[in-house]
Amino acid sequence: MSPVSESMNFLNEIAHRFPDAISLAAGRPFEGLFDLDDVHRYFDTYRRHLTARLGGDEQAVRRTLLQYGRTKGIIHELIAEHLRVDEGITADPQALVVTVGCQEALYLTLRALRRDDRDVLLAVTPSYVGVHGAASLVDMPVLPVRESPEGIDLDDLLAQVRRARAAGLNPRACYVIPDFANPSGIRLSLEVRQRLLRIAAEEDLLILEDNPYGLFGDLDGPPTVKALDERARVVYLGSFAKTGLPGARVGYVLADQRVPGAAGPLADQLAKIKSMLTVNTSPIAQAVIGGKLLAHGCSLRAANTREREHYRSNLAQVLTGLQKRFGATPGVSWNTPTGGFFLLLTVPFPVGDELLELSAEKFRVLWTPVHHFYADAQARNVMRLSSSHLRPEEIEEGLNRLADFIRYRSHT
Amino acid sequence: MSPVSESMNFLNEIAHRFPDAISLAAGRPFEGLFDLDDVHRYFDTYRRHLTARLGGDEQAVRRTLLQYGRTKGIIHELIAEHLRVDEGITADPQALVVTVGCQEALYLTLRALRRDDRDVLLAVTPSYVGVHGAASLVDMPVLPVRESPEGIDLDDLLAQVRRARAAGLNPRACYVIPDFANPSGIRLSLEVRQRLLRIAAEEDLLILEDNPYGLFGDLDGPPTVKALDERARVVYLGSFAKTGLPGARVGYVLADQRVPGAAGPLADQLAKIKSMLTVNTSPIAQAVIGGKLLAHGCSLRAANTREREHYRSNLAQVLTGLQKRFGATPGVSWNTPTGGFFLLLTVPFPVGDELLELSAEKFRVLWTPVHHFYADAQARNVMRLSSSHLRPEEIEEGLNRLADFIRYRSHT
Repeated sequence: MSPVSESMNFLNEIAHRFPDAISLAAGRPFEGLFDLDDVHRYFDTYRRHLTARLGGDEQAVRRTLLQYGRTKGIIHELIAEHLRVDEGITADPQALVVTVGCQEALYLTLRALRRDDRDVLLAVTPSYVGVHGAASLVDMPVLPVRESPEGIDLDDLLAQVRRARAAGLNPRACYVIPDFANPSGIRLSLEVRQRLLRIAAEEDLLILEDNPYGLFGDLDGPPTVKALDERARVVYLGSFAKTGLPGARVGYVLADQRVPGAAGPLADQLAKIKSMLTVNTSPIAQAVIGGKLLAHGCSLRAANTREREHYRSNLAQVLTGLQKRFGATPGVSWNTPTGGFFLLLTVPFPVGDELLELSAEKFRVLWTPVHHFYADAQARNVMRLSSSHLRPEEIEEGLNRLADFIRYRSHT
Repeated sequence: MSPVSESMNFLNEIAHRFPDAISLAAGRPFEGLFDLDDVHRYFDTYRRHLTARLGGDEQAVRRTLLQYGRTKGIIHELIAEHLRVDEGITADPQALVVTVGCQEALYLTLRALRRDDRDVLLAVTPSYVGVHGAASLVDMPVLPVRESPEGIDLDDLLAQVRRARAAGLNPRACYVIPDFANPSGIRLSLEVRQRLLRIAAEEDLLILEDNPYGLFGDLDGPPTVKALDERARVVYLGSFAKTGLPGARVGYVLADQRVPGAAGPLADQLAKIKSMLTVNTSPIAQAVIGGKLLAHGCSLRAANTREREHYRSNLAQVLTGLQKRFGATPGVSWNTPTGGFFLLLTVPFPVGDELLELSAEKFRVLWTPVHHFYADAQARNVMRLSSSHLRPEEIEEGLNRLADFIRYRSHT
């Protein structure tokens, strides 16, 4: 099995082994605002909407929700409206594929892009574990592109593309999380987004824009790269795991690229792959997300007012808490994201899995060694901290334990 | 794009273009017994069960149903109980992976079995389109094994294995639907099942047993191959699309094989792949299926009493209807499955896609050209007829139109 899945597995497994540890590792959404009754409420909202749309034909409603269904999904029009309302993206609903979470969207995209052994993916690194996972399933090598304080080192992107071409490889796309990246929390500026688009056009690259956290940022942030995309350079990967409900496992991909020799957009190629992989995304699960969209005028920003406040306040608490505990500690520093779930903490020693184990066992606090976000798996002096799913008192206690661990380790 | 997906696409597309045609093509379950309120009812049944199991811990219930969850799924124990009750299979719940329909189970299994370019799959042919789809996604060639009137030509299986090995290939497994195969409707006898198991052990092959229709057969039918499997030769692929609800998109795989060098069963390898593909199957969708299982003491046979009667009666009507219309027609013959959704009709002329198009346009009746179930895509004199989703009057009218088409085509 690939190192990627071993890595994901190790992190899950350690969380299970130390259930009383406070996790600054998990990137899960806050579940304090989850409500089980939402499942019925949202499902019924979508059901009523569908009944009206189908002119009251109950049999057609039953068929749509309970039978095998459209490969590209049933809530594509609502998603297109959400993209218009929340992101200023003009999306043709026919260019959307509703997927089993964003992870399937990533897989479908990479599987469609991969033609032969020479195709490679570029990824801003450190990068989300899932992109290495999907790439390894389609046997597509991932070439790292250096992250910079601005989020992506565009000179390195160009250098990597040229080096790959010189080696006979075909760089197909560059994967990036422009808003509050996982793991670094960095948000790309408008200028970097525009330069990235320019490079993509000049170098004939696609950009895979993954955007699970963007809606938790300030309203005056830069637009998504897709909203700036005039030449269909961006494949936009969407998730409802953080803004909708993780338990629905619904995501989507907007792939409006033209495909030589094909009548429809790239989305149609993805749908063909999906028909061989999962056939279609559960319409019951789609209805739950569709109902949540409908209940908020298709604005997930509106639907997540309390969540946004929770994440913002948690992140601020972590930043203040780090300053209080480590403001004068040599060798300890961190970056200061303006939103999202994550930040990177630099410590005076390399943090590998064996130290995480020690931290879990002796100090009852979990964090993520950043090497899990690199293909080379070499321990570095950096850990990812996440606070998304915690309550204020858990954050304080988690940071206390973390400080104890760092103090202990610095003196041994 | 692969011929497989073109094939699936063509068949879907023609059904959409001729909505007033009667479809003897679609293999969908009968939706006349679907009830939208079941979604809430089953979900709540499972929710109550979970609340009791978790000692009333509402937060844990919310987390289980709405948060990211266990990669291998949450209803594995209910599925194990169903396998015990309905199939006499003793399944370790830890060897089960709950999947996004049976199609994902197939993909995960093939992806895990594929080590390099020499690995190949054997499949009783004509075979279900989905197996070619999943195999093409993992770049694993499919070698056909001849179907015989008994369902599988075991001499040909042995010959294929040996020929493949002589050519430097590694046959990893043989795919088979032992109960009412798609497309032929044939059911393997107990003796054939036992010989198949013996060959698998002797030749070090796995059997991929796909069983979506078995529960619609008589109670005195032969046991599943998995129930006879004493040496963990069978990977059992399960679907709830026909016995549960297609709209839940929930299936599973029982993979209890030991893996050299690994602590857990093959299921754990599949779970690692799943974590990179779809992360986990929607717990909301799983809860709906879990509730249906609970509502019927984990017996899907009990849950499908009316459905079984519907399918049995439809198949009998088609067989009688064919006899009435073609009993004396030279060149027209058919097999007589004892259950399931399908049968094969032989006609006096090769039936390719262009004839299906003619049949749809001029005669308003759809059927499936059998070449879609072969890798070579050569038109043959055989079509698959399905009656699962129709009402009696639609079957009569469909067969009338089919008779008109065959008469017309025989005389031109």
